[in-house]
Amino acid sequence: MTHPAALARWLERGDVQWYESGQVALRGDALELYQRLDRVFLGWAARDHGAGDELVPAFLPAAALGKIDYLRSFPHLVTLPLTLSHDPDEIRRYLAAGPQLPDGEIRLPPAAPIRDVLTPAACYHFYCRHAGQTIAAPTYLTTRATCYRREARYEPLTRLWSFSLREVVCLGPSEAVQAFLEGFAAKLEAFARQIELPVRFATATDPFFDPKQNPRWIAQVVAPVKREVLFDAGDGDRAPCAIASLNFHRTYFGEAFGMRHGDQPVSSGCVGFGIERWMHAILATFGEDPRAWPV
Amino acid sequence: MTHPAALARWLERGDVQWYESGQVALRGDALELYQRLDRVFLGWAARDHGAGDELVPAFLPAAALGKIDYLRSFPHLVTLPLTLSHDPDEIRRYLAAGPQLPDGEIRLPPAAPIRDVLTPAACYHFYCRHAGQTIAAPTYLTTRATCYRREARYEPLTRLWSFSLREVVCLGPSEAVQAFLEGFAAKLEAFARQIELPVRFATATDPFFDPKQNPRWIAQVVAPVKREVLFDAGDGDRAPCAIASLNFHRTYFGEAFGMRHGDQPVSSGCVGFGIERWMHAILATFGEDPRAWPV
Repeated sequence: MTHPAALARWLERGDVQWYESGQVALRGDALELYQRLDRVFLGWAARDHGAGDELVPAFLPAAALGKIDYLRSFPHLVTLPLTLSHDPDEIRRYLAAGPQLPDGEIRLPPAAPIRDVLTPAACYHFYCRHAGQTIAAPTYLTTRATCYRREARYEPLTRLWSFSLREVVCLGPSEAVQAFLEGFAAKLEAFARQIELPVRFATATDPFFDPKQNPRWIAQVVAPVKREVLFDAGDGDRAPCAIASLNFHRTYFGEAFGMRHGDQPVSSGCVGFGIERWMHAILATFGEDPRAWPV
Repeated sequence: MTHPAALARWLERGDVQWYESGQVALRGDALELYQRLDRVFLGWAARDHGAGDELVPAFLPAAALGKIDYLRSFPHLVTLPLTLSHDPDEIRRYLAAGPQLPDGEIRLPPAAPIRDVLTPAACYHFYCRHAGQTIAAPTYLTTRATCYRREARYEPLTRLWSFSLREVVCLGPSEAVQAFLEGFAAKLEAFARQIELPVRFATATDPFFDPKQNPRWIAQVVAPVKREVLFDAGDGDRAPCAIASLNFHRTYFGEAFGMRHGDQPVSSGCVGFGIERWMHAILATFGEDPRAWPV
């Protein structure tokens, strides 16, 4: 890390504004870097795979995530959109009792049924859309979505409750998906070498709740399907952080969402880019002057 | 309305994807229209007021909204981000009891304290940031944010739980804020006339809960501070819909957030553009062929 104080300077001049809840607001050069990075990733998806950009909404239907038992695998990460009962009398009683504590905490209100989940990963929107469909030819999709993962503690840019994830997804026969993932691994390796960003690849597992009780985690340990691109500033200031991941789902989503290729469940894979974490990597390596950025 | 079936065609070919929860996903021409419209609004903010774009996060601190008693005024609209207790044993007991009903509904979990609110209006982020500050000269700010307002029912593009709001805000002395709002009203009127979009201006009030019990609603009726730009396709297919609003807050936010101009609370005003509603207006008036769009 050649520029350990660059983020501090951005925080001080307000290019990055820190929310204690684990979020950032961006403007000026920080927003410029965010946009430049996303153009690189979208460019790869568009040029190499013909994927057009999409805008997906904030909430996913809980019923769709039920198909993959998301809540049982990641209950500690999930964020749910809670709204008040539609009954005006229930609302009036809640307000009369004082809805908010002096420190700002909101008392749990009388709730309307919860039928949605705040997007935990951008690509789930695509599996929902293609549920029950036959995927005749390899299909490439991309979106940048705000994703939500509750953590025990947060850090500006690297560990956020809500963050921006650019994902590129391939649905198709297993060989096409594997070629897609290998292609992206090679592209990422060449890009990091070209701009001299200190990264390494490592196999990883998803952050399951009670992992040793979960057959899916055990399967991921036995036969790794997730690789991460780890940025390490090398100064001990922060732990290495995953700025991208490559995930081979085999037919997991194909089976869960009834997506078929011929008479088989379709395979899928996705590549994810955590944009704020890439900002951290560029900032720590090249500093906050836009003229020094290699993107 | 010259193109009543345009939206239906977009829904069928997937340019607009409808979520029953009151949300849309956009791609292809629909995303193109969304981006073109936002460029027009951002262009006005940048060219006429020197405002640079910003990216604000999804959640606002509940304590900040407590300063304006948001929860008491709009409890029926609010969406809260709910996460599970940090206690693994509480999570295990919840999972053991079955977290999800067969129709997908999620049972209310053991909850961590709620300290945030999903952004109900983009401009609140600016009042939070400038809280306690002195605003020496008129200050112009803009952002496009996803905003959340729970409704009793939803409609594609025009009535959404989560939607995109471009806001332009002025903080400063009362005369500067009023000139800013008058300037935007003239700009909007000229733009609608130029592209021949059937709109009219009308005074309006905010959608308070139990409005007749709320002194703020009564004040808005007595001395109107909100104007809306209503699009009416004129075919009775849908009710007129507000595609933009102009709001003079007087010193309401200046007092609540301790923002001062000299030794007085600062005045503020904002102009909001509901991008999906503008899409509806353009689509209904000019159809779904991008070559026919006047933007």
